[in-house]
Amino acid sequence: MSATPPESASTARRIALPSPFRLTTGGELVGAEVAVETYGELSAARDNAILIFTGLSASAHAAAHAADPSPGWWDSMIGPGRALDTDRYFVVAVNSLGSCFGSTGPASLDPRSNQRYGGNFPEMRVEDIARASQAAVDSLGIETLLAAIGCSLGGMTVLAHAALFPGRARGLVSISGAMAANAAAIATRSLQREMVGSLLKAGADRPLVEQAMRWARKVGILSYVGTDLLEQRFGRAQTEPYAGRGSGTDFEVESWLEHLAQKFVKQFDPWSYWTISRAMDLFDFGAFGAAPSADGLQHRADSDTAAAARTLDVERALVIGVREDLLFPVEQQREMGQVLGEAGVECEYVELSSPYGHDAFLTESALFTPVLAEYLGNLTNRSVQRPVSASSSINA
Amino acid sequence: MSATPPESASTARRIALPSPFRLTTGGELVGAEVAVETYGELSAARDNAILIFTGLSASAHAAAHAADPSPGWWDSMIGPGRALDTDRYFVVAVNSLGSCFGSTGPASLDPRSNQRYGGNFPEMRVEDIARASQAAVDSLGIETLLAAIGCSLGGMTVLAHAALFPGRARGLVSISGAMAANAAAIATRSLQREMVGSLLKAGADRPLVEQAMRWARKVGILSYVGTDLLEQRFGRAQTEPYAGRGSGTDFEVESWLEHLAQKFVKQFDPWSYWTISRAMDLFDFGAFGAAPSADGLQHRADSDTAAAARTLDVERALVIGVREDLLFPVEQQREMGQVLGEAGVECEYVELSSPYGHDAFLTESALFTPVLAEYLGNLTNRSVQRPVSASSSINA
Repeated sequence: MSATPPESASTARRIALPSPFRLTTGGELVGAEVAVETYGELSAARDNAILIFTGLSASAHAAAHAADPSPGWWDSMIGPGRALDTDRYFVVAVNSLGSCFGSTGPASLDPRSNQRYGGNFPEMRVEDIARASQAAVDSLGIETLLAAIGCSLGGMTVLAHAALFPGRARGLVSISGAMAANAAAIATRSLQREMVGSLLKAGADRPLVEQAMRWARKVGILSYVGTDLLEQRFGRAQTEPYAGRGSGTDFEVESWLEHLAQKFVKQFDPWSYWTISRAMDLFDFGAFGAAPSADGLQHRADSDTAAAARTLDVERALVIGVREDLLFPVEQQREMGQVLGEAGVECEYVELSSPYGHDAFLTESALFTPVLAEYLGNLTNRSVQRPVSASSSINA
Repeated sequence: MSATPPESASTARRIALPSPFRLTTGGELVGAEVAVETYGELSAARDNAILIFTGLSASAHAAAHAADPSPGWWDSMIGPGRALDTDRYFVVAVNSLGSCFGSTGPASLDPRSNQRYGGNFPEMRVEDIARASQAAVDSLGIETLLAAIGCSLGGMTVLAHAALFPGRARGLVSISGAMAANAAAIATRSLQREMVGSLLKAGADRPLVEQAMRWARKVGILSYVGTDLLEQRFGRAQTEPYAGRGSGTDFEVESWLEHLAQKFVKQFDPWSYWTISRAMDLFDFGAFGAAPSADGLQHRADSDTAAAARTLDVERALVIGVREDLLFPVEQQREMGQVLGEAGVECEYVELSSPYGHDAFLTESALFTPVLAEYLGNLTNRSVQRPVSASSSINA
């Protein structure tokens, strides 16, 4: 992963949200903000902005830049000449509301109590992540996004965004996302939440909470990576041949998991983890197609993905799935492409194959680059044929 | 699952092992025993005995009978007219050494200290489970088994048994087993062991150990059942529509997992779980094909499954795999069939499809019955053409 800082136009900042910021299920946040990084320059016509929605645990630091040359989580895709070409596009990455990398979340101080929110952070939904990010886009003076792109959780958020803000993004890209989590994904995440949440709610000491976070992360990793990748990389390699009753580990795959889990625990807030994980499971794109019920909330029985898709105002969508994805199985993404297409959204569905499974978008830039580059190029070229953009093209 | 007790010939007993009972890696057990149940009657020629090796958490109570009419874990397969037809076969089910349902294991008293073994139970391998079970077979006066059948862990044990005791079983059946665990299975089980083992080793209180056991069991269940089964049975059904910040659960699949996990915790000993789980990961059929190294132990680098398979003396093998199995992927079972076949073992490979995944053998009797019944019938009929059996056939 190259950490070459792109041009100095890149910025990292915090953007204040309207205060109070009202949440989907009734709560509100006072003085909330989101951390935002941008790469490239906004065009004079303000028509080249791409918004990125992240996965559960990512920050707004999607790419390295002069002010923060540490590796970004999508360095391989963002930069001059890359899929999200910063010579052409203005890329906006937002740390999800509820996260812990500069955006307001459970680890933030509640200005009303001057205490960290922790377990008192108000009930939050994927819709609220979309709303907070759109508020940042508004702040940046962007009327219409060229595209909104989301990976994993972001692949849900991008659907929420499209439903909540019709016409505010010309393109919609969902990578390894879903219209709603399936039962196995819910079971997996709810187990992770139980581990972390039961200790948090019991007021357990930090080491115990960290232990639960490590375990939850390991459960997560095993749902992210493909079985074949582990087999290819580690097989049955042992830390020492037929080690005796170890207090430690027997197999190299165990050491690898432990390394990743420890890294995660150092970075991520447990209540953020719990809050965002639960939002993912409760997300239901079909709820946007349901008539509101008497209590003002959507109920699963009313879920209607076809009706929800018909409410969208998107020029062209791109849905990318990975066959080896255990957590967001490719069938769910095929279904997303089909539902969007049948609702009249011009939609391209691309199925990739990678042993990295759900994590493929983080590592397989060779697979994702041509697909994303072509999709964004096509969107931009269409733009040239539109009245407003045509004039700017003539001026060039 | 019918719990109709078969004929009164069925028995439940404990069989003493030779004492001391020496273990593969040097430890030994004094006064050890295994719990054994038998169903049907041993023929005069003593040629109709079938030995069953179980999965990690099963007892010897494979079928209901007069003395213990509670449901057995393989009731659907064992009984008059069933696949393991107790009108024809003498079925022997042994609780694995190291388990906690009557066989000596970590929960047993060490007669030398009069304390429970717990974490002092000696290092145990799958080979030791095979040896202890064969000792029980010897005790029953059975020279040659008609077949040895193993499911899951038992599908490893049956290979160890065949390698350790060539010619002692005419047939070999591996159901959802493997010649060695793959990296993903190792990662999954090592995480379960870490959860339970770290608390056991720290001397944690029973409620904490039970919590870890519940979590470990949930990780296990998610690796046993197929994704489609959860989706079909639970989907996104919620315990209440869009429940508020629950201290409890949001989705029905969570309640189901919790129910199963609590049931398991009441039944299974944590150190048994840790011990048998680790034995599974360290099992390597290919080690039987390796020349012993200077330290007397087998090393992975020397593993040679082809050479191991050539040491077997089995008339006919049957390998059954399930396509939806996440833990013992069907590729591993295809490979097992291939290795056995190429080594000159007459081997039938059957691939089944079931949303129950790894657990299919417990529930899909309609799929497994014809395959097993035909295989066992063929083995028995061959027997008729042999000199000894021919005479008993003429006498009939």
